Amino acid sequence: MAKNNLPPSGMRDFLPYEKSLREYVKSIIRDEYAINGFTEIETSEIENLSNLENSDGGDNTKMLFKILKRGEKLKLNEVPEKESNLADLGLRFDLTLPLSRFYANNRNELPNIFKAIQIGNVFRAERPQKGRYRSFIQCDVDIIGDKTNLAEVELINTVGNAISRLGLENLTVKINDRRILKGYVTAAGFDEREFSDIAITLDKLDKIGVGGIVKELNAKNYDSDKINQLMKISEEIKQGGLETIQKYSAEGYQNLKEIIEVIDEVQKSIKIEFDHTLVRGMGYYTSSIFEIYYGDLGYAVGGGGRYDKMIGKLSGVDAPACGFSIGYERIIDVLFGENKEIPRGTKLALFYDEKDSLKDVIKRSIALRETYSIVSVYLKKKKFGKQVDRLKSENYDAFTVYSDEMEIKDL
Amino acid sequence: MAKNNLPPSGMRDFLPYEKSLREYVKSIIRDEYAINGFTEIETSEIENLSNLENSDGGDNTKMLFKILKRGEKLKLNEVPEKESNLADLGLRFDLTLPLSRFYANNRNELPNIFKAIQIGNVFRAERPQKGRYRSFIQCDVDIIGDKTNLAEVELINTVGNAISRLGLENLTVKINDRRILKGYVTAAGFDEREFSDIAITLDKLDKIGVGGIVKELNAKNYDSDKINQLMKISEEIKQGGLETIQKYSAEGYQNLKEIIEVIDEVQKSIKIEFDHTLVRGMGYYTSSIFEIYYGDLGYAVGGGGRYDKMIGKLSGVDAPACGFSIGYERIIDVLFGENKEIPRGTKLALFYDEKDSLKDVIKRSIALRETYSIVSVYLKKKKFGKQVDRLKSENYDAFTVYSDEMEIKDL
Repeated sequence: MAKNNLPPSGMRDFLPYEKSLREYVKSIIRDEYAINGFTEIETSEIENLSNLENSDGGDNTKMLFKILKRGEKLKLNEVPEKESNLADLGLRFDLTLPLSRFYANNRNELPNIFKAIQIGNVFRAERPQKGRYRSFIQCDVDIIGDKTNLAEVELINTVGNAISRLGLENLTVKINDRRILKGYVTAAGFDEREFSDIAITLDKLDKIGVGGIVKELNAKNYDSDKINQLMKISEEIKQGGLETIQKYSAEGYQNLKEIIEVIDEVQKSIKIEFDHTLVRGMGYYTSSIFEIYYGDLGYAVGGGGRYDKMIGKLSGVDAPACGFSIGYERIIDVLFGENKEIPRGTKLALFYDEKDSLKDVIKRSIALRETYSIVSVYLKKKKFGKQVDRLKSENYDAFTVYSDEMEIKDL
Repeated sequence: MAKNNLPPSGMRDFLPYEKSLREYVKSIIRDEYAINGFTEIETSEIENLSNLENSDGGDNTKMLFKILKRGEKLKLNEVPEKESNLADLGLRFDLTLPLSRFYANNRNELPNIFKAIQIGNVFRAERPQKGRYRSFIQCDVDIIGDKTNLAEVELINTVGNAISRLGLENLTVKINDRRILKGYVTAAGFDEREFSDIAITLDKLDKIGVGGIVKELNAKNYDSDKINQLMKISEEIKQGGLETIQKYSAEGYQNLKEIIEVIDEVQKSIKIEFDHTLVRGMGYYTSSIFEIYYGDLGYAVGGGGRYDKMIGKLSGVDAPACGFSIGYERIIDVLFGENKEIPRGTKLALFYDEKDSLKDVIKRSIALRETYSIVSVYLKKKKFGKQVDRLKSENYDAFTVYSDEMEIKDL
């Protein structure tokens, strides 16, 4: 019987090239984050299920991988009725909830302003489809304890540096502020409680245009005068830019103005622009929100914002916080598609015959490692030509045969 | 209500120092493996439950974290009766089973002799206790497709290099061969089918001595003549060493002799010695088995051996294989206990006042990054002395205040 040797649906294995690309990307991101003063932490991939379920995770809490209770806790002879009778642990769906728990648990041992790096696997039981994975890596930077614009500036600057170091040029950061959004939606006459729902539609302006927005808001039964007023304001902001938004949120305006000015001046790899239609889904954002785009790619390769209330709500410890998450898997997909070359040392294969002394062959390999970064020893096969041909596909630069003394042949 | 902010029982979070130690150790191991011609792969942390359960994983299959079925597959209104009605996925308990699956699935894209690195999390629902974790990292190197002693030599040499590069000196490799063990146990008169059980007892010779072994085998109701004969042979091998074992397995003897000779000659960081009582638990080993010890630590910091039949059995594709796994968590425990210093660049804090221009401060930080590897910007607080005091505990080497022009103060 042929065995099923594939990983489970939606899960992945990585062959050497892709794995080396993944590690290379991680190492660049990690290094760029570190030189900007961020320090890395790690949290458990497994969380108590109650923490995951009682979070602000929205739809993500519907996609939990839950872990079966063990031993006597699992009653196999009773009708379970609900999942909480069967499972007590779950796999994390993001890195923000674990960070909040970690921060609450360890804050006495952490700096007052804690600049955290997290790079790790998260899990979501989404319907498997192309480009959507059920286990994937997130690379987050978060600054906890800083309520000033420095946090936004450092996050955008650092993430911009990291992505451009990976060779992705033509980067654009779009930035907005929740308070401005809320300001002009209520100025159009909507109720504050309607804001979230209106925002979901506004978010689509890029894709469906003004006509589409009006149609959707009408379908949702909103008052047409208010809809028209909203479109008028939106057009006014679109034409007038940043200077037109002061009246909707003076604080939001001041913050965006400074962030944009600083990034414009110090960060040459990215363009930053105010986009009053940027919404971002998560309900926990309190003010600035931003996304980073690469070239013509139709989706963001990173996003984040300020979430000043979340840590307090989740952990009981109030702290302002701002974070930026790199869309690691999207960047990998881009680089993998481009067959991105990974910097590496020179690679040599040393062949030997069965009659050679293994001791002497190994000694030679150690000596060769002084000159070549990577040296691998192989027994010479009868079909030696074929064996040598294969080396190229494994990125070898040269080979040598032990009995040929010092002759090294480049590939 | 105080929230529980601890990770689940047996799981861990890592604070900045421990995380940096963990990443440093991974990077050294990864680099040493790579320069010896190994290439890294990655497999899914989640496996189909049937693969995990039908493996040769022994006790590990009793410690599976199983993942609840999702959607319609989960019948909440029926008595489950057995766990297989509730779960279809599980978390991997080691890296060898996934490697076999991976190899069977991808062998056409892999080199004939495949030298694999795997560094990843594995999960075992053990009873939580000090020093025993339910989620931990394994660092494996395996060579698939090489039936010669080169595999053993490269694995032992590479792992020895990696561990000694981490600063652990006084390393000893103990080596034995399953065929020799089996040879002298049957020579004492025992049946081959009794071998595994006898081996479990023999494994304890170090701890309980000859008297303890005899007592335990008697308690297991083995024939006392055979027990005495076994002890006689064991003493004879202990006294005579490698030369006395030829008669029990000529092949085993030849292999061990060559491996020991080569390692003795080429690897100065470790001592290698034949130990006829070394057993290693796993049933899948077919010939050479080895463990690496550090100083007086009472347990191995790595182990491995040859498992020529396992890949065929698990995957349906026959291939000789040999592997060595570094006891990563044990090494971390040693280095963490020693407060191991991690090589790092110089670290500077740049303080600024609210009245300073954020743009100019950030520009200064970028300029300072030319000189200091790590530069982090902080708003100056009222209690500045206290703020500076804290820097030392965060490994800062120096600080500067923006308005003080270029004056840099060493810490």
